[in-house]
Amino acid sequence: MRLAIVGLGLVGGSLARALTRRGHRVVGIDTPAVRRRARRAGAVAETCARLEDALDAVELVVLAAPPDVNVSLLRRVARVAPGHVVTDVSSVKLPICREAERLGLAGFVGGHPLAGTENAGFGASRADLFAGRPWALVGGRPASLRRVRRLVRHVGAKPLAVGPAEHDRAVAFLSHLPQLVAWALLDAARRDPVASRLRGLAGPGFRDMTRLAASPAGLWRQILRANATEVDRALEAFLRALGEGGPSARRRATWIAD
Amino acid sequence: MRLAIVGLGLVGGSLARALTRRGHRVVGIDTPAVRRRARRAGAVAETCARLEDALDAVELVVLAAPPDVNVSLLRRVARVAPGHVVTDVSSVKLPICREAERLGLAGFVGGHPLAGTENAGFGASRADLFAGRPWALVGGRPASLRRVRRLVRHVGAKPLAVGPAEHDRAVAFLSHLPQLVAWALLDAARRDPVASRLRGLAGPGFRDMTRLAASPAGLWRQILRANATEVDRALEAFLRALGEGGPSARRRATWIAD
Repeated sequence: MRLAIVGLGLVGGSLARALTRRGHRVVGIDTPAVRRRARRAGAVAETCARLEDALDAVELVVLAAPPDVNVSLLRRVARVAPGHVVTDVSSVKLPICREAERLGLAGFVGGHPLAGTENAGFGASRADLFAGRPWALVGGRPASLRRVRRLVRHVGAKPLAVGPAEHDRAVAFLSHLPQLVAWALLDAARRDPVASRLRGLAGPGFRDMTRLAASPAGLWRQILRANATEVDRALEAFLRALGEGGPSARRRATWIAD
Repeated sequence: MRLAIVGLGLVGGSLARALTRRGHRVVGIDTPAVRRRARRAGAVAETCARLEDALDAVELVVLAAPPDVNVSLLRRVARVAPGHVVTDVSSVKLPICREAERLGLAGFVGGHPLAGTENAGFGASRADLFAGRPWALVGGRPASLRRVRRLVRHVGAKPLAVGPAEHDRAVAFLSHLPQLVAWALLDAARRDPVASRLRGLAGPGFRDMTRLAASPAGLWRQILRANATEVDRALEAFLRALGEGGPSARRRATWIAD
């Protein structure tokens, strides 16, 4: 398949590497410096400066820029190639799904790979980033959905069809709240003079629980703003549970494995 | 060196394995079933039912039972062998250090390896549990401290001398608060019907941040009760930071590496 990926950061770059490795022809779109790096790394077959110039030659477009940018890219696709199959990788799905509907983009399928790390940029991308990871697929007509689902399976991810509202509510608990908590755990320790001086005592638990604090702050501000209502709901539930101060009745391992 | 380890759980069992492997002669003290498992695994040279019966034959005693039990074991050592070098592995140091002082136990050195996992019991013990991990050493006269420090280095840990009050304050931020937060993150998600149904969307971030929720609840209740004042201080600082809702100005990686 020939496809265009706009944004060759951690997710877009990893997707380009994985698809190129599996024989797809990827056209990469990003800034000149990132395009050069992606070509040198063999992550893409070719590159292009403008999305509009690539659309004729591809069957599928993946929007892998920051969430706010993806929405404006969607409008550009709608102007030039409203019949194209388009998907995205944004962490919040209601805003972009609503915009696709408003634009009458019949070929849009929302996507969200749950495979991030705390690192960012093309330099952090890896062909195996999606192996075994869930990849939410939101909305879309049957033919487009089939095409995107095949793509997701090709890179080793597990597609999971969900509605946009339930997606945004679930990831508020499973991804956005943990991000806020990681920042706050780190900041609390960092500001306490004693904990800060003795931070050499931090064990693997603290490291795991603050790993996400290194995530790119600008990107996360967009995500949290876009999903503010659901993040507030998750935060309230978390504060209630924290106030109880007790252990979960069931073990986490069991819950996740269910 | 001949030494006794009381309690062959995750920490005591791992210490027994690591020391036996390095040629020390370990006398293991625990329930009959655990003693049998430890002997079969080759983790100990011999076992003993009662601490008092082992004291004559050893140069050093490690108390690796739950925190409340360690304090009562300390009293038993004080009655029979007040001159022995004794250390412990409890997560809270003020209570046991105060008790050692009250008992006039000149050979006591408080210890705390920052090397736990969410698993518990002899079955989870491993000889390499302490490799590269910090191990707080609290108080103690020079000769006893030297002896315990040598032991800690022998199992690959990095000894760090700290006072009991500053230890308890720092671990409230670096270990006890993260434990409470892991429980609350899991409980919040588990109770939300949508997040619970879509828990297949949980990525590596959520898994890392709730790993500790599988830790043994009974042991943690003792730890949190013993360090309640400092845990409250850390919790308040955390809630303040969470209320700001923003990212840390400095990246976590930098802070921990400093």
